[in-house]
Amino acid sequence: MKTVTRFWIVGLAMMVGVGMAYAGFSKPADAIAYRKAAMKVIGYHFKAMGAVVQGKAAYDKAAFERDATMVAAVSDAAWADSLVDGSAMGDTTLKESALMDKAGFLALAKDFHAAAVSLAATAEKGDLDAAKGAFGETAKSCKACHGAYRK
Amino acid sequence: MKTVTRFWIVGLAMMVGVGMAYAGFSKPADAIAYRKAAMKVIGYHFKAMGAVVQGKAAYDKAAFERDATMVAAVSDAAWADSLVDGSAMGDTTLKESALMDKAGFLALAKDFHAAAVSLAATAEKGDLDAAKGAFGETAKSCKACHGAYRK
Repeated sequence: MKTVTRFWIVGLAMMVGVGMAYAGFSKPADAIAYRKAAMKVIGYHFKAMGAVVQGKAAYDKAAFERDATMVAAVSDAAWADSLVDGSAMGDTTLKESALMDKAGFLALAKDFHAAAVSLAATAEKGDLDAAKGAFGETAKSCKACHGAYRK
Repeated sequence: MKTVTRFWIVGLAMMVGVGMAYAGFSKPADAIAYRKAAMKVIGYHFKAMGAVVQGKAAYDKAAFERDATMVAAVSDAAWADSLVDGSAMGDTTLKESALMDKAGFLALAKDFHAAAVSLAATAEKGDLDAAKGAFGETAKSCKACHGAYRK
């Protein structure tokens, strides 16, 4: 019963998604390139914060805040649009299971976005210790999704 | 005199930049990959809005707003950091002139960011006609920079 309900919810969400999809990816390779691009941008700014959190680089509020803002923004990338058939093959590290369980993947993407938004809010306050905690939570959300859906 | 003043301002800005640069790109290829990734993300969301503006796709406030927000966020990418020596060669369309005149390039990048932020603010209000105007202004800022600094 629970599975059936979930099926309908996912089905409805997908229909709504299709209705809204004036964008979308016509080719799997385009979806892959988009995902990789979003991850590249996220990775650069996350790594920059990581260096500060680990004490390898000096803390600069404006720079840290900018990096956190960028990660928060791009964590809301068009992940749902990008889960097109065939986009777990080729030049990608996405597991096929992400395409088989889109709702599961998108739930982890949502967790990541929520954690990144919290990190950005903390960064804005300029409290490095609080930011370190929020950074750790965000890193956990990265790992959760990578652990589940990355080859 | 004006040129000398400008030289010092740019020089100071660069020194401040270096002081803050806990991130940065160690290799030109990394800077190129980052710029291309940011452009890829921007391009996807900008194109999606373009389809709506051109009447090729239905207007959906939430989707349009999300696209505008994404472009506004990524328009503030680490362009300055990315202007590293040697990054106008290889797999890039950046002209060498952008590296020779970083201040000029960054001024156009700033214009683009300002236009994209306006577009996002307009999109948030849900006024498609106003958003069309703001989209046009943003497109102009894209063209201005591409015209000057893209091969």
